[in-house]
Amino acid sequence: MTATTDFAFRLLDTDGNARLGVIETPRGRIRTPAFMPVGTGGTVKAVYFDQLRELGTDIILGNTYHLMLRPGAERIARLGGLNSFIGWPGPILTDSGGFQVMSLAKLRVIDENGVTFASHIDGSRHELTPERAMEIQHLLGSAIQMQLDECLAFPHSEAECARAMRLSLRWAERSLEAFRGEPGQACFGIVQGGIHPALRAESADRLAAMGFAGYAIGGLAVGESQQQMLATIDITAPHLPDLRPRYLMGVGTPLDIVEAVARGIDMFDCVMPTRSGRHGQAFTRFGKLNLKNARHADDPRPLDETSSCPAASRYSRAYLHHLVKSGEILGMMLLSLANLAYYQDLMAGIRRAIAEHRFLDHRERLVAEWSRVEEQRP
Amino acid sequence: MTATTDFAFRLLDTDGNARLGVIETPRGRIRTPAFMPVGTGGTVKAVYFDQLRELGTDIILGNTYHLMLRPGAERIARLGGLNSFIGWPGPILTDSGGFQVMSLAKLRVIDENGVTFASHIDGSRHELTPERAMEIQHLLGSAIQMQLDECLAFPHSEAECARAMRLSLRWAERSLEAFRGEPGQACFGIVQGGIHPALRAESADRLAAMGFAGYAIGGLAVGESQQQMLATIDITAPHLPDLRPRYLMGVGTPLDIVEAVARGIDMFDCVMPTRSGRHGQAFTRFGKLNLKNARHADDPRPLDETSSCPAASRYSRAYLHHLVKSGEILGMMLLSLANLAYYQDLMAGIRRAIAEHRFLDHRERLVAEWSRVEEQRP
Repeated sequence: MTATTDFAFRLLDTDGNARLGVIETPRGRIRTPAFMPVGTGGTVKAVYFDQLRELGTDIILGNTYHLMLRPGAERIARLGGLNSFIGWPGPILTDSGGFQVMSLAKLRVIDENGVTFASHIDGSRHELTPERAMEIQHLLGSAIQMQLDECLAFPHSEAECARAMRLSLRWAERSLEAFRGEPGQACFGIVQGGIHPALRAESADRLAAMGFAGYAIGGLAVGESQQQMLATIDITAPHLPDLRPRYLMGVGTPLDIVEAVARGIDMFDCVMPTRSGRHGQAFTRFGKLNLKNARHADDPRPLDETSSCPAASRYSRAYLHHLVKSGEILGMMLLSLANLAYYQDLMAGIRRAIAEHRFLDHRERLVAEWSRVEEQRP
Repeated sequence: MTATTDFAFRLLDTDGNARLGVIETPRGRIRTPAFMPVGTGGTVKAVYFDQLRELGTDIILGNTYHLMLRPGAERIARLGGLNSFIGWPGPILTDSGGFQVMSLAKLRVIDENGVTFASHIDGSRHELTPERAMEIQHLLGSAIQMQLDECLAFPHSEAECARAMRLSLRWAERSLEAFRGEPGQACFGIVQGGIHPALRAESADRLAAMGFAGYAIGGLAVGESQQQMLATIDITAPHLPDLRPRYLMGVGTPLDIVEAVARGIDMFDCVMPTRSGRHGQAFTRFGKLNLKNARHADDPRPLDETSSCPAASRYSRAYLHHLVKSGEILGMMLLSLANLAYYQDLMAGIRRAIAEHRFLDHRERLVAEWSRVEEQRP
């Protein structure tokens, strides 16, 4: 932990458009580009928080939607806030709930005021407004709190996209108004506008004028192509203030991340390493391995003998295959951990490459690594 | 690890019929009375082997039935044996597969030669004879290998029980004949005979005459009352050699264990701590808590603030309740670990009490602790 009581982003270096930085918060520093493991309902699935620390994780993400439904924001506040409740001492970024309301909740009704919906767990009725989203995140005590926005599924019409983006802008103003950060807490705005350059520019410019502590790019990784996603980042980034962190929500694969860093993104979150791990897939520097595949059954080699993560270096692929085939929890534990280690090592490598002004080479090497066919032998 | 290359049991002290001992093996010593976590299919479910060590676990159990079906004994042998395959350096006791054949397999046919059955996983046909059971355990490289026996469900007629017990005796002779232990490996015989004193005496006497390195009491914890189980131990133990370890298979609750120790038992295994943990139940010195219960939802206290196990001392009951209600893997991980810690602490406390010749008092205290109604507040 650092002694800072303020939220502060320092841009340490650049290499092309790639940025090396650090976010200081009262709960510790976040080295950027940063990957945030997703702690959906108060747990990064199948891993211990101590393990996340050992992997070099600076910040995790929590989902407002999940936590407001279960165990409830007021309950978490009574129990001392989300950090204390789950036993993670570092910074937590919480989303506003908007994305999960659109993807998980039922009977959604959106109007100017906010969104009402039925819980996917028990059907209970809830309302989420910009003000309530900020109140919940205040109760959780999140280091970084996100404005409520309207997330559209892809594809959608440009008119629909413009309407949702402008509603999200009005909600941004209300969110910032309602934000009651403790010292060192921050509120981020979210750029919307789909894959439409003019809408993205309008959204980014108007948010920047509001003066958020950081800016997210939302509404991507929802079904568009990687090319469309990267083009949208190319359009959007120049409209964001240089001296504020930029967060690409819900992204992504290792290649998505390296390409987004090349375009000036500082922060990422994605369920991919943990979800893939629970489904028997391993991210390695040899590509993505499907441990269900019978060809691993007799393979004595670890996932990667050079990894500093015991899950990747100490257990044979044969054993991992056995655990996955048997549906054993330990298989999910080991692969989730190995994948999170891969992601944190990926970010550390990216940060070093930027610091040493060889990011372009590093990016090419990663692209080449990931261009190999899946499951190719090293 | 000790430098011994032999399997040796040393009886260090007694207190009444309770015995304090140590089993030396090339893979390390086993302090008795010992509890062996069950590593069914090559994993003690939802825990890391490193964690088992930290809890003071000296030995784990592996199931021949599960391992022969998946991933297969020959495959494990090719991969260096079970210790190497799973990454557990200490001693492993493997059962013979007989119990799971009776409880899990399909289309069972038993005759003098052995048992044929269909796998519960894929229906494939397999044969288990006394010779094959020993061969499998040889391939696994288990420190302690068990004879094949016939396990009956409870209740059964005395005649049926006598027939199965005598078949098991003939299989014991064949098992001992087929046992090809590496230096320091041991073969245990299994006393059968249900709850019938004359049959238990006959079984124990005839096994003792065969000269096994240790003796198990099988066929208990299969539906009989605790009183019947303890009476059977009372009858059987005097027929077993004093200077060989005695293992009560598949038992049990904390009270079963303390009562069996009082009757001269040295080794135990049971799925209870891990299975209960996966189902939201916690063993604590305040009794067994059901973390699903809504009354834990706002309880900031840990399971036991005095426990040396972080799972029991660092996380609130409210958080554990939340994880269990949400079906989160971390809930299963934490409760399995906390329960195994409870069991290992139970054994350590029992060993200390015997060493200090206050086992009777200790037993009374444990009985009183567990006589409290479930879920009573401390």
